[in-house]
Amino acid sequence: MRLNSLALVLTFGLASQGCLATTESAQSAAKSNTIPKNIIMVVADGMGPAYTTAYRNFVDDPSTDHIEKVVFDEMLVGNAATNPAKVSGYVTDSAASATALATGVKSYNGAIGVDVNKKPLPTVLHKAKEKGMKTGLAVTSQINHATPASYMVANESRHNYDAIANSFFDDRIGDKFLADVMLGGGTKHFVRKDRDVRKEFADHGYAIATSYEELANLPKDKPILGLFAPLGLLPALDDTNRERLSFLTQHAVERLENPNGFFLLVEASQVDWAGHGNDIASAMAEMHDLATTMEYLKAYVEKHPDTLVVLTADHSTGGLSIGANGQYAWNPEFISNMKASVGKIAKQLAQQQSPLLYLEEQLGFTLSAEDKKVLEKLVAEKDVDTVTSQIKAFLDNKTNTGWTTSGHTGDDVEVFAFGAGYQGFTGQIDNTDIAKKIFHLLDN
Amino acid sequence: MRLNSLALVLTFGLASQGCLATTESAQSAAKSNTIPKNIIMVVADGMGPAYTTAYRNFVDDPSTDHIEKVVFDEMLVGNAATNPAKVSGYVTDSAASATALATGVKSYNGAIGVDVNKKPLPTVLHKAKEKGMKTGLAVTSQINHATPASYMVANESRHNYDAIANSFFDDRIGDKFLADVMLGGGTKHFVRKDRDVRKEFADHGYAIATSYEELANLPKDKPILGLFAPLGLLPALDDTNRERLSFLTQHAVERLENPNGFFLLVEASQVDWAGHGNDIASAMAEMHDLATTMEYLKAYVEKHPDTLVVLTADHSTGGLSIGANGQYAWNPEFISNMKASVGKIAKQLAQQQSPLLYLEEQLGFTLSAEDKKVLEKLVAEKDVDTVTSQIKAFLDNKTNTGWTTSGHTGDDVEVFAFGAGYQGFTGQIDNTDIAKKIFHLLDN
Ligand SMILES: [Zn+2]
Ligand SMILES: [Zn+2]
Repeated sequence: MRLNSLALVLTFGLASQGCLATTESAQSAAKSNTIPKNIIMVVADGMGPAYTTAYRNFVDDPSTDHIEKVVFDEMLVGNAATNPAKVSGYVTDSAASATALATGVKSYNGAIGVDVNKKPLPTVLHKAKEKGMKTGLAVTSQINHATPASYMVANESRHNYDAIANSFFDDRIGDKFLADVMLGGGTKHFVRKDRDVRKEFADHGYAIATSYEELANLPKDKPILGLFAPLGLLPALDDTNRERLSFLTQHAVERLENPNGFFLLVEASQVDWAGHGNDIASAMAEMHDLATTMEYLKAYVEKHPDTLVVLTADHSTGGLSIGANGQYAWNPEFISNMKASVGKIAKQLAQQQSPLLYLEEQLGFTLSAEDKKVLEKLVAEKDVDTVTSQIKAFLDNKTNTGWTTSGHTGDDVEVFAFGAGYQGFTGQIDNTDIAKKIFHLLDN
Repeated sequence: MRLNSLALVLTFGLASQGCLATTESAQSAAKSNTIPKNIIMVVADGMGPAYTTAYRNFVDDPSTDHIEKVVFDEMLVGNAATNPAKVSGYVTDSAASATALATGVKSYNGAIGVDVNKKPLPTVLHKAKEKGMKTGLAVTSQINHATPASYMVANESRHNYDAIANSFFDDRIGDKFLADVMLGGGTKHFVRKDRDVRKEFADHGYAIATSYEELANLPKDKPILGLFAPLGLLPALDDTNRERLSFLTQHAVERLENPNGFFLLVEASQVDWAGHGNDIASAMAEMHDLATTMEYLKAYVEKHPDTLVVLTADHSTGGLSIGANGQYAWNPEFISNMKASVGKIAKQLAQQQSPLLYLEEQLGFTLSAEDKKVLEKLVAEKDVDTVTSQIKAFLDNKTNTGWTTSGHTGDDVEVFAFGAGYQGFTGQIDNTDIAKKIFHLLDN
C-alpha cells in the first residue's frame, strides 16, 4: 500500500472524527517531501510578535468589516526563545542569536559563529556547502553584519567588520568559497584602501553588481557579489525599490537553483533598525518588504514543493506595542502614505520654503490645526536628530504606538515555516532548535 | 483495517521520511479521542506573549547553564488575533474579547455576550448545558466580571454588574441554571440590600462557600456558589493561598465530573490587573498561580485523555517588555522573594518604625546604599497611591522591566491546547475561531 493512499484513508478516517489539523498535516506530508532539497532561512531581525499584528492592522482595508489576513498568518507554527548564553543574561543581541540560529549553540552577546569559549562553530550554511549545495545571502544590512556574518564566518566580535569581510573571501569549505551569491550592502568594508575584497572575488570568477539594474542584467551562471550601499541599503521608504529585499531574494534564488539544491539566508535586517529608532513608519515599510518577500517565497514553494522556508526573528526590538498611554486604539492610517522615511524628511526640512506644506505632503495626510501647532515648533529646530525624534514622537502620538526601549527585549519571537519538512518547527522551541533541525534535515 | 493500526502504519511510513511532527500528531490522534467529553477553557486575562517568556525567566534556576522549560512550553500551538468589531478599532477590552471567545462573534468594547446590535448570543457554555453537560466557572475576579459574565449572560454593558449578577440566577437553559459551580469573588454584587442573589441560589439547592476552607469541606454532590471576596480575590501575593486559582480549579473539576461531561471556564483574571497596574511582581505571582493551574490540568488530562484544555489570553495588557531603556538585561531576582504585593507594602509602610528595614524584608532582597537613597524619599510620602507607584517604578528599574500603557494593547496572544481535539487550535487563528471550534466539538 503506498503512502498516498494510506494518508488518504487516514485522512477520511480522522476527518469523520473531526480531527482536521492532523488531517491537514497528513495531507501535507503526503503531498510534499519531508526532506527538502532547498532550504531558505529568513531572519526578520528584531521582529517581535507585535510587529506581525501591527502589520496586519497596517494593511487592513478599513472599508471591510473584518481585518484581512496577511501572508504571515498562514505560515505561523510556533514560538522560539531567544535568550543568549547565561553569561549574557536574558536579552540577546543579533550576534548571539544569529550564532544560535546558524550553529545551534548559545553564545555570548557579540559572538559571531563562536561559542562561549570563542571556539569557531560549524554553521548550517557550511554544512550545506559541504554537501555540494549552493549557498547564498540576501540581506538589507551590510552583508558582513551580525546575522549574515554568523552564518558565514567565525569572529570573537561582531564589531570586527573588516576582518569579517576578509574572512568572507579567505575562508573555504574544502576548496570552495562559502557563498555563491552575496547580495546586500557593505562596500565600506569590502572595498578598502588596505584591501579590496570585492576585487579579489571578481578576480576569482564572481560577477559584481553595484546597482539593482546591474544585478538584474548580469548573467545567471556565475557566482555573484552584489554590494549596493556603503553599509546597509537605504531604508525601504527611501529606496528606489521599496521591495528591495523581495527583489534581492528573487535574484538570489534564481542564481542558486541547481540539481544539488541550495541554502539561502534572507534577512530583513532593517526591521531591527526601525525598532532601535522607535520608528513605526519605517518598521511597517520594512515589514511590507518582508511580506512581499514571503509572498514570493510562498509562490516559489507552491511551484517547488521540495523547498523548505523557515522565518523567525532573532529577537524583539524596541518593545513595540499596538496602543499606548492608556488609550485603546491604534491608528496606522497616519503612516500608510509616507513619501520618505522620517530621517530623510527631517534632513530635508531645513531647506523647505513651506515647511508645513512639505511635512503634510511627505507624511501623506492632512494636518489638523493642532498637528500644525505641534509641528511648527520643529521648523525652527536646526538639529536633524532632534527633528527626527520629534517627528517620530508626533507619529507615535497620532498612531498611539508604544515603545519601551531603543534596544532589544527578551520576549519570545514567532516561528513561521512551510514547504518540505516544515513540520519539525512547530510549537514552542528554542532558537538553537532551528539550527539543530536544519542540520538534521541536511544530514539526510 | 482499524484506525489505530492505520495510524501506526502511517506513523512508521512518515517517521522513516523524517516527518516527526506529523507522526506525533498522528500518534496523539490515535491515542486519544478527538471529540472531548470535557472541555476546560482557560483565559489568562491580559497575558500577552511577553508574560510567558517573562515567567520562564522568572522561575529559571540561575545555577544551571540553560533556562528550564515551563509548563506553557509543551502546550503552545499558535497565536490568536484579539481585535474587537471594527466599530471599536484594533484594541479590544475584556468584554468584547470574552464575547468573541464565548460566542464566536466579534462585538464592541463593553459588550457582554451581545453582538454589535446588542442582540444576545448563544455561548459555548450555554451549548454545553443544553447538551446535558455540567458547567462551571473558577476565576480570581468577581464571577460577574467581563470574562466569566460573557460566557454566562447577555448585557449591553459590562458595567451593569448588579444586573449581570441577577441574570446569573434569573437566566435558564431550558429549566436548568446556567452553571453548576461558580467560584470566585463578588459578594458586593450578589449579596445586596435590594436583592440577595446568593440566598436565592441557596434556596434552590446550591451549597454556599464563603472561604477556601468551607469550599474544601462542602459535600461534592451539590451545585455550589463560592464567593470569597466582595469583588476580586486578594492578589496572589497577599492571599492566604497564593495558588488559589489552582485550588478553585481543582475543586470545580471535582464537582463537575459526571458521565455527561462538563464545560469549565477558568480565568486567571488578575494577570490583567497586574498589567493595568504595571506591577511586574504581581504579574509574575499571578502567572505562577496560572502555571500551577496548568500543571494540575496537565496531570488531569494525562489521567482523563477525554478532556480538552485550551488556554489563551483575551488580549495583552500593559505593553510589558523584558528589558527596557536601551539595556540588554532583565533581572527577575528582584521580584522572586516578595512577601506581599506592592500595594499592600505601600499601605503598611506608614505604620512602620523602621521603614527601610520593613521594605528590605518585604521586597525580599538586600537593599544597596543606592536603593536606600531612592526608597528613603518614599518614607515621608503620605499618599499610598504615590508610594505604590514609586515602589513599582523602583522594581521596574531594578528588574529593567518596560511598560507602554496602563491599558490594553492590540498584539496577538498565544494559544495553548492539549488533550482530546487540541489539534483544531493550531497555527494563527482568530479569537472567534476558538468559540467556533468549541461549538463544533460540542456539535458532535
Ligand atoms: Zn538590533
Ligand atoms: Zn484589562
